Amino acid sequence: MADPRFYKLAGPFTLKEMSVLTGAILSADADPKISFKDVAPLSAAGPDDVSFLDNKKYIEEFRVSRAGACIVEEGVVKNAPEGMILLISPTPYRAYALAAQAFYPEPAFAPSIATSASIDDTAHIPEDCLIEPGVVIGAHVIIGTGCRVGANTTIDEAVTIGDKTSIGAGTNLSHCHIGARVLIHPGVCIGQRGFGFAMAASGHIKVPQLGRVIVEDDVEIGANSTIDRGSGPDTFIGAGSMIDNLVQIGHNVQLGRGCVIIAQSGVAGSSKLGNFAVLAAQSGISGHLVIGEGAQIAGKTGVMRDVGPGEKVAGIPAVPIKEHFRQVAILRRLANKKAE
Amino acid sequence: MADPRFYKLAGPFTLKEMSVLTGAILSADADPKISFKDVAPLSAAGPDDVSFLDNKKYIEEFRVSRAGACIVEEGVVKNAPEGMILLISPTPYRAYALAAQAFYPEPAFAPSIATSASIDDTAHIPEDCLIEPGVVIGAHVIIGTGCRVGANTTIDEAVTIGDKTSIGAGTNLSHCHIGARVLIHPGVCIGQRGFGFAMAASGHIKVPQLGRVIVEDDVEIGANSTIDRGSGPDTFIGAGSMIDNLVQIGHNVQLGRGCVIIAQSGVAGSSKLGNFAVLAAQSGISGHLVIGEGAQIAGKTGVMRDVGPGEKVAGIPAVPIKEHFRQVAILRRLANKKAE
Amino acid sequence: MADPRFYKLAGPFTLKEMSVLTGAILSADADPKISFKDVAPLSAAGPDDVSFLDNKKYIEEFRVSRAGACIVEEGVVKNAPEGMILLISPTPYRAYALAAQAFYPEPAFAPSIATSASIDDTAHIPEDCLIEPGVVIGAHVIIGTGCRVGANTTIDEAVTIGDKTSIGAGTNLSHCHIGARVLIHPGVCIGQRGFGFAMAASGHIKVPQLGRVIVEDDVEIGANSTIDRGSGPDTFIGAGSMIDNLVQIGHNVQLGRGCVIIAQSGVAGSSKLGNFAVLAAQSGISGHLVIGEGAQIAGKTGVMRDVGPGEKVAGIPAVPIKEHFRQVAILRRLANKKAE
Repeated sequence: MADPRFYKLAGPFTLKEMSVLTGAILSADADPKISFKDVAPLSAAGPDDVSFLDNKKYIEEFRVSRAGACIVEEGVVKNAPEGMILLISPTPYRAYALAAQAFYPEPAFAPSIATSASIDDTAHIPEDCLIEPGVVIGAHVIIGTGCRVGANTTIDEAVTIGDKTSIGAGTNLSHCHIGARVLIHPGVCIGQRGFGFAMAASGHIKVPQLGRVIVEDDVEIGANSTIDRGSGPDTFIGAGSMIDNLVQIGHNVQLGRGCVIIAQSGVAGSSKLGNFAVLAAQSGISGHLVIGEGAQIAGKTGVMRDVGPGEKVAGIPAVPIKEHFRQVAILRRLANKKAE
Repeated sequence: MADPRFYKLAGPFTLKEMSVLTGAILSADADPKISFKDVAPLSAAGPDDVSFLDNKKYIEEFRVSRAGACIVEEGVVKNAPEGMILLISPTPYRAYALAAQAFYPEPAFAPSIATSASIDDTAHIPEDCLIEPGVVIGAHVIIGTGCRVGANTTIDEAVTIGDKTSIGAGTNLSHCHIGARVLIHPGVCIGQRGFGFAMAASGHIKVPQLGRVIVEDDVEIGANSTIDRGSGPDTFIGAGSMIDNLVQIGHNVQLGRGCVIIAQSGVAGSSKLGNFAVLAAQSGISGHLVIGEGAQIAGKTGVMRDVGPGEKVAGIPAVPIKEHFRQVAILRRLANKKAE
Repeated sequence: MADPRFYKLAGPFTLKEMSVLTGAILSADADPKISFKDVAPLSAAGPDDVSFLDNKKYIEEFRVSRAGACIVEEGVVKNAPEGMILLISPTPYRAYALAAQAFYPEPAFAPSIATSASIDDTAHIPEDCLIEPGVVIGAHVIIGTGCRVGANTTIDEAVTIGDKTSIGAGTNLSHCHIGARVLIHPGVCIGQRGFGFAMAASGHIKVPQLGRVIVEDDVEIGANSTIDRGSGPDTFIGAGSMIDNLVQIGHNVQLGRGCVIIAQSGVAGSSKLGNFAVLAAQSGISGHLVIGEGAQIAGKTGVMRDVGPGEKVAGIPAVPIKEHFRQVAILRRLANKKAE
């Protein structure tokens, strides 16, 4: 079970309740009234725990798991150890997520405003918010209901924050409007001036950056990531997008809905990502490009041209992923031939 | 126009004033007394706005733009929509930067020292500075006139800061001397010990890092970037260098004047960059290398050898950029031949 | 000599003392009672200083160095300038590290708890700790003896910190247990929720992240690096591991003892590194992989398969380093042939 110093466990939940929560279908012979106390990974789960199998890599752990119940795809049912109750789902990870959210709901917090917080008189902060110590909030800031602002965070003048948004410790927000139910991790910087200047040997000349950052609802932004404000247009992060740690988003970038940007990736100025585009880790998108809806960029890819909707690309410079695999194969073959 | 909650507009300015400010030449038929109220990007500009065209990618936006005036190169004059007044410049982006600085000057601030700041008695802070809440300033720190230090920033013992320097919120400075008119964005870490240790299976042994970081005048350092102090020599950032977000500068690195280092790039220990060297995004320079004046390193490049003055390189490992393009082309050809 | 505003010099030390401290052997003709006052790099060292030569690149600096004594390998003795006293060591950098630690011991600090720190009543903080201004410490936190916590750092509920650990300014710790003698640089984020969610067009569903981060003794973690907590299992950083700046460690990652992870590298979720594995700068390890003990990953490498113990790999995707060199050579040859 999760360390009770950090996590509070709800439940137990019956198989029937879990089936309703997750949409998973209970195997015919299982008693829907049996209840389970916790969720756990396959290797650590015991008879009172619900686990899941989503990655075939872990099928051997599944075969010998002591989990009382497990959420799985139809296809692996035959590999289940004897006595394990199965919850069948076409999307086991998704079903597990819903079950785990029930067992470990987001912890409630006691609303309060720390006396060591520095809050401008013109800022609006509802009574049901938690403002932790050392927070600094500037003039005309508007914070929604039920928000939590972590310690030592700075929110500059005129920033607005939607309802039920949670902001981590030590973040720095300026020139931005943040939506509802957004989760901002510690150390994030949003709204600082973009990297805009005219180069000249006599001294680079800074171009005033006059836009904002708009973060829509339900976005998550990972620790120490940076999102520059627009130069004139706004930088825009579409609803439900998930941004991992140490990601860089340049000025004027537009992300559609549900985009996923994995750690240490970067999107250069003025590029646009369609809805549900995915950038795997350490990939980079050059400036002024259009990445289509549902496009998938492999890890470490360097994208220097537009990418079509649904297209999968890899390599530096990026090419269609099948072509990339052929490039890798041919180069490997040539190198090994040379070695003979 | 820029969101007035965040930006204050100066002006209006006449065409004559703008011509003087920017060096751009007014088309012969334009009345120099006509005035404009604001700057705006091509797609958003209206009859009272000045815009610019610098990237041919946006020529279609230029053709249909409603901007009252536009700063352009000679060569695109023929593409201008009817009625648009043109300001001709060989460097439109540079001219636009100067115009935009006039319309949106850096906001003034009211000097004050927040009561929640913790400032050592021996620190020197002129009366015209703004020290925001939660700032912590150590012993013997010396800050120049007209500086701004953002909330929750920490400046350790004996650091010095030049005149009119602006330091973002949540930055951490130690073992460094910062010049005048430097702009440090939020979350930056400067002066922490470098990554110096002798490896041994019995336990790595740390090498004391005994240098400093010297940041010359007019440097800009992007959000969450990190600059380690020297191991014995100093780490050195030359005047006017522009460093983007999430950049890593290792110990003993020396940057010349006017270097440009774009987001998520890194320079490993003891490497030297000549004046005006440019590192595009996510590039890396190995340790103990010399990169010549004006050298240009393409995005995602991994440089493992010295680079000559003015040389352009790309690839992993870096080769002259033309050779890199040939490598890319031949590999693409081989892979497609295989696919036939 | 190091800037006395930042560093306090101990010593002098005699050659005999230095020989004992470092294990280096004194050349036969040297008087063991001669003492030296400082350490310095070859180019800056004078007659009272001890220097070292570890990288052949600097042999010309060695030939003309004015250093009074120098720690060197046997093989370069013949290149020494006349009059220089030599301390012979098979590992000059390691020996220098020990000498430099003697000349510049870690500065002591006066224990105190800043009045502007916000410390929960249930937190345990020994009297010999230094808690700087603006620090925020949550409920049930336990801090060991002799710790230093830098300004504006946030330590959330139930975190524990071992003895003599030093935490930089502006760091954010939650859901973690930190060992003894750990050095955490400024801006580090440890313990935030990992990047775990089930993707769906109807909205990505977050998976509760129920593990912790365990950091063993003697670890160093570089500025602005991020370490996510486990999803169920813990994220684990083995004793003596050295992590550089801007490194990303995903949820459930396990690092063995003495691992070295250089700047801007990333390790994706659930991957395991054996003891003393080394990741050079800007490299990336995909998720769910096993990297063997003592494996070496070259800079900029993208590892997408398991790596065996002691194996050296490079390239995207990673291949054995000799094969990588052959790939580089053959591609270069083909490209140049084409150019002819």
